[in-house]
Amino acid sequence: MTDGNARRTIWPAGNGAVDIIDQTTLPHACATRRLATVADVAEAIAVMRVRGAPLIGATAAYGMAIAADADPSEAALKAAHDRLLATRPTAVNLAWALTRVLERLTPLPAAERAGAAWAEADAVADEDVALNAAIGDHGLTLIEAAHARNPDRPVNVLTHCNAGWLATVGWGTATAPVYKAHAAGIPVHVWVDETRPRNQGASLTAWELAEAGVPHTLIADNAGGHLMRRGQVDLCITGTDRTAANGDVCNKIGTYLKALAAHDNGVPFYVALPSPTLDLALPSGDAVPIEERAAEEVTWIPGRTADGRVETVRITGAGTPAANPAFDVTPARLVTALVTERGIVEPHRLREVFGALEAAS
Amino acid sequence: MTDGNARRTIWPAGNGAVDIIDQTTLPHACATRRLATVADVAEAIAVMRVRGAPLIGATAAYGMAIAADADPSEAALKAAHDRLLATRPTAVNLAWALTRVLERLTPLPAAERAGAAWAEADAVADEDVALNAAIGDHGLTLIEAAHARNPDRPVNVLTHCNAGWLATVGWGTATAPVYKAHAAGIPVHVWVDETRPRNQGASLTAWELAEAGVPHTLIADNAGGHLMRRGQVDLCITGTDRTAANGDVCNKIGTYLKALAAHDNGVPFYVALPSPTLDLALPSGDAVPIEERAAEEVTWIPGRTADGRVETVRITGAGTPAANPAFDVTPARLVTALVTERGIVEPHRLREVFGALEAAS
Repeated sequence: MTDGNARRTIWPAGNGAVDIIDQTTLPHACATRRLATVADVAEAIAVMRVRGAPLIGATAAYGMAIAADADPSEAALKAAHDRLLATRPTAVNLAWALTRVLERLTPLPAAERAGAAWAEADAVADEDVALNAAIGDHGLTLIEAAHARNPDRPVNVLTHCNAGWLATVGWGTATAPVYKAHAAGIPVHVWVDETRPRNQGASLTAWELAEAGVPHTLIADNAGGHLMRRGQVDLCITGTDRTAANGDVCNKIGTYLKALAAHDNGVPFYVALPSPTLDLALPSGDAVPIEERAAEEVTWIPGRTADGRVETVRITGAGTPAANPAFDVTPARLVTALVTERGIVEPHRLREVFGALEAAS
Repeated sequence: MTDGNARRTIWPAGNGAVDIIDQTTLPHACATRRLATVADVAEAIAVMRVRGAPLIGATAAYGMAIAADADPSEAALKAAHDRLLATRPTAVNLAWALTRVLERLTPLPAAERAGAAWAEADAVADEDVALNAAIGDHGLTLIEAAHARNPDRPVNVLTHCNAGWLATVGWGTATAPVYKAHAAGIPVHVWVDETRPRNQGASLTAWELAEAGVPHTLIADNAGGHLMRRGQVDLCITGTDRTAANGDVCNKIGTYLKALAAHDNGVPFYVALPSPTLDLALPSGDAVPIEERAAEEVTWIPGRTADGRVETVRITGAGTPAANPAFDVTPARLVTALVTERGIVEPHRLREVFGALEAAS
C-alpha cells in the first residue's frame, strides 16, 4: 500500500483464511494465494512466499488467528506459536508478533480468543502500515536534504534486498522515504542491488518501483562500491531483520559490504527500522542467529525464457557445493542513523529513544 | 595447465589457426573452438569465449600471428592490432601483447613476419605459464605460513571471479598458489565468489577447482564479508586486469568490496600480478577505463534445467533497466601485497621492483 499501489501484501479473506501475494512467482506473475491453515502459513513463511521482517510478523499474527479459529485451547495456541516460530530464525518480528498475539489471547475465555486474535492480527498489520508511513515521513527529510545539496540532478539512493512494500504490509521500510519523495515531486533514482542468491532486488524491488513509477536501475551486488567511489550514490537505505541494542544491524547478506563501501566514501548509510524489528534484549549483533538456507538457492536460479516459459536453471556444474548464509551483521559504527517511526536516531541513541520498549517487554 | 590439468586454454591448431576452450559453454560443456581469422579472434575476446587478462593477451598475440599469415604488410598488421585492441578496454595485457608482437614484426622483411609472429605468440603463451608458475611458488609461501598458524584445519582462501587456469594459458594467477599448495599436500579450501553478473566463479573457478580436486564452496558475492567477520577466511587472493604504478588494482567488479571487508577484519588481501598486467605508465587506478558491458548480462542468466537443457532465463520483469560496470578499482591501501613472479611485493614497492619495465617500454 503506497501512493503507487493501493493494495496490501496480506489481507483477511473471510472464512478464517488470509490471502497473500505469492512473492515466489514475482516478477513473472503476480499471483495471490490463500492460507487457510497453520500449516499453510508456516509453509508460506519458510519458503518465502511472504518475506521481509515486518510482513513475516504480520503473517505470523494472522497464523495465530487461523489457529484460534481451529482450536482456541491454550495448548493448541502454544503449539501454533512454536510451529510458526520455528519457520525462520533471524527476523525478530516473528517472535514479537507471535508473543504479542499469544499474550493477548491467553487471559481470555476460549470462546473469545478467535475474535480477539483476528482483531490483534489486524492491529499488527494496521500498525505496520502506520509505522512505515512515519518512517517514510522522517526519511523524506534525508532525501530532501540530499536534493537541496545537488538540486540539478536526481537523488541517487542505493538499496539492498527488498525492504519495500512487498516486505511489509504497506509502504515498505527502506522504500517508504523513496515513495514519499517521489510523491512530493523530488527527483529520485534508486540503484537496486540484485541481492543474490534469492534476487529479491531484481525480482521484487525493481518490480514494485516500476509499478510505482519510480526511476531505478538494477545492478549486480558487486557494483555498489564502484558507484560510490564514482560519486554516483547520495545515500544508502536498507531494511533490517533485527537490530541490537547497540545499533548493530542484522540484515540480508551483503548489507555489511555496502556499509563498508559507504563508510569508505563518506556516503551516509541509513537503516529503516520499525520498532518491532528492534531487539533491545540483545546487547550486540554478534548474538543474532544467522539462518543458513539451502545450497540450491545459490546454484539454481528461476527465470523466464525468451519465449515466455518459467524455468529454473543450474548455473554451476553438477555437484558444486555451496554455502548460503542468509544474513550478515553490520556493526553500528558503519550505520549513520536508523530511520524509525520516532525520527532519525543515531545508533548510540537507540536505548534512549526506545528504552521504554525494553521496560515494557 | 596445472598438476591437475595438463591442457592449455589456447594452442596452435596448425594451418594458421588456434584452438581455444570456449568458456561461454562452461560448466555445462567443455568445448573447443577454432579461431582461423582475425575476426574470429576479435569475436572470441569481445564475447568472452576467452577472458582473463593473461589469456586475453595471449589470444591477441595469436591473433596477430593469424593476421600475419593472411597479409604481412605493415598496414594489415596495424589494422589487426587496432581491431583487436578495440575488443575490450580494461585489461592492459591486451595492449601489451599486441604492441609486443607488432614491434617484433615491423623491422622484419614481410616474408619473415608470419613465422616470427607465431614464434612470438608461442613465447607470450610460454612466458605466461612460467610467470604463473613463479607466482604460484611465491604465493605458496603465504599459504604455508597460514597453515603453520592454524595447522589443525584447512587454509581457507577466498577468491573472486576466475583468475585461474582458465584466465591464463596455464596455472592461473590467483589459483597458482592454491594448486601448488594442494600439490604439496597442504589442506586448502577455496571460497568461490559466484561473481555476478557473468558468474565466472560459479561456472569457471568452481569447475576448474573440481577438475583439479581442490576442495571448494561456492558462495554468493554477498557472503564474503560475513565469512570474514566469522573468522572463516584466512586470506584473499584475486587476479587483476591492470595494476597502476601506485599499486591500485583494477579487477572484476566487486573486488573492492572484498578488499574492504578483508581490511576491516584483518584478513590479508593479496593480488596475483604477472608483470604484463602492470601499467607503470598509470600513476593511479583512477585513470583505468572501466568497461561498461551490456545490461542483458545482468538481467539474463544461462544455465541448465533439471532435465538437461541449456536455457537462458530473464530474472527480472520485462524492461527492467540495468547497469553493468565490469571492473572496479581497489585502492593500494587495501592491498596487503602483490604476488608477482619476482616475489611478494607491497604496493609501495612496485616501482622499485618493476621500474626497469617502465624504462624498457
